[in-house]
Amino acid sequence: MKCTKCGGRAVIDLKRHNSGFCKEHFFEYFENQVRKAIDEFSMFGLRDRILVAVSGGKDSLVLWDVLMRFGYQADGLYIDLGIGEYSSASSQKVRDFVLARQANLRHVSLEQDYGYGVPEAARRLRRAACSPCGLSKRYIFNREALEGSYDVLATGHNLDDEAAVLFGNVLRWNTGYLGRQYPVLEEDPGGLVRKVKPLIRLTERETAAYAVLQGVDYIVEECPKAIGARTTLYKQLLNDLEIQSPGSKQQFLYGFYERGHDSFEASRDVALTPCTECGQPTTREGLCAFCQVRSRLLTVRA
Amino acid sequence: MKCTKCGGRAVIDLKRHNSGFCKEHFFEYFENQVRKAIDEFSMFGLRDRILVAVSGGKDSLVLWDVLMRFGYQADGLYIDLGIGEYSSASSQKVRDFVLARQANLRHVSLEQDYGYGVPEAARRLRRAACSPCGLSKRYIFNREALEGSYDVLATGHNLDDEAAVLFGNVLRWNTGYLGRQYPVLEEDPGGLVRKVKPLIRLTERETAAYAVLQGVDYIVEECPKAIGARTTLYKQLLNDLEIQSPGSKQQFLYGFYERGHDSFEASRDVALTPCTECGQPTTREGLCAFCQVRSRLLTVRA
Repeated sequence: MKCTKCGGRAVIDLKRHNSGFCKEHFFEYFENQVRKAIDEFSMFGLRDRILVAVSGGKDSLVLWDVLMRFGYQADGLYIDLGIGEYSSASSQKVRDFVLARQANLRHVSLEQDYGYGVPEAARRLRRAACSPCGLSKRYIFNREALEGSYDVLATGHNLDDEAAVLFGNVLRWNTGYLGRQYPVLEEDPGGLVRKVKPLIRLTERETAAYAVLQGVDYIVEECPKAIGARTTLYKQLLNDLEIQSPGSKQQFLYGFYERGHDSFEASRDVALTPCTECGQPTTREGLCAFCQVRSRLLTVRA
Repeated sequence: MKCTKCGGRAVIDLKRHNSGFCKEHFFEYFENQVRKAIDEFSMFGLRDRILVAVSGGKDSLVLWDVLMRFGYQADGLYIDLGIGEYSSASSQKVRDFVLARQANLRHVSLEQDYGYGVPEAARRLRRAACSPCGLSKRYIFNREALEGSYDVLATGHNLDDEAAVLFGNVLRWNTGYLGRQYPVLEEDPGGLVRKVKPLIRLTERETAAYAVLQGVDYIVEECPKAIGARTTLYKQLLNDLEIQSPGSKQQFLYGFYERGHDSFEASRDVALTPCTECGQPTTREGLCAFCQVRSRLLTVRA
């Protein structure tokens, strides 16, 4: 296959765009897609301080890499979730990245800083690991962004991630979640940082190819706790659809942003008050959800 | 497997309900589901005259059968679409049904009454057969219902049909179609008859089982023109999902009726005027879409 741009040897074919690209023009394509997402949704500018949530996986490290290439002020945030080998390996990938690029990293350890790890929390709460993990990450992302006075928090969610989550929300017609699923979540003056997803125009396969070709070393293994998660099933189904009808996945996601999302405008008029324990914003009286779960975990242990 | 109701030998298992039924209790289950749909959406009452659009397939004949069993005033409408062997075989199934049950049938032949058949129309218009077929059926359904002074037109669309159409509409975020997809479409005083779908709570497999067990003979072959249609692909994907997560399909469809549909309220405030050719309602100036296509077909031939 030949590069659609220059006729040279293509290193990747993109059926959804009916195109193929050599290494150089794939980089150009990839970076243009990131720029397009940033511009289309006015995600941030060169004066903004961006905190990139990095897991050590391909998407978040590629995002951080590209943002620095573009000249943005982008620091990283890594949370050690205490998931044994997986956490130590992913933490190492992030440290290597930081050293090679002389980047700034904020490092949080769930066990050392908050007193519990994800596997232990899941066991004690008798919940799937994704439940305390998601709660803890959302909390720490926001808290770290506020404490570091960042303008915006960026995550590496890609087209496959967002399409799968959208599929799940549509299957259950979860209108509240549909109203909040968007590439930008505006800040709430009550204490919620602005959140953006600059990789929504790129697939997993594309971010993996970019990482490999650009020399971004990442942890290939998926989180061992996420195996069998619903999102994985939805990704498979959408991949089956994509094979039979290339372009369906992006049509589904972009069509939602353009025409679907506004139908589910989130009722974000809930007042936020500071948590009586940590001072972070919450819609509840007293403890926020994070502090409530954490106090339960620490009490059970004592 | 045992019948969930009586412990007798089950003839069918329904994973989505975590149940199995013997013949007698399957009939009870099936008919209860039809009653539930009719009641939930106030589709019609015993005083209403119902016109059932029948194709000779399992769904529409089962619907007609059940409505007569319930004591409703239900007549049938069969349209011979001129699709060779398929049309003659399906027409025969409908005639057999009518004879056995002494039912009333309205019979329309697209070729004899309107001057063209579906395959010929598709060829001349250079469109997939489903396009002129759908247009013709929608037109004739409405016209026959009005001419026969029926209160409501009922079609045999089942849970699989509706979930697949919904999936297609959601994949493209076709908000106009989403606003009009509902088990009841109210009449428009401008000349559109009320339309209802009483089988939305039952799957294809269940209507097929009911037909076989109840002795309703139907044409098993799918329409030869519909092979490879998008809806078939969507049905397959939803069936894959259903296998891995039983109940997903009904959750998707019922959840849409309960929580999704209202977000897409159709803008039905378009004024209808009579077509200058046939007098049937249309949103256009002059000829309605049906008469426009028909005149094109008849002109090309002349």
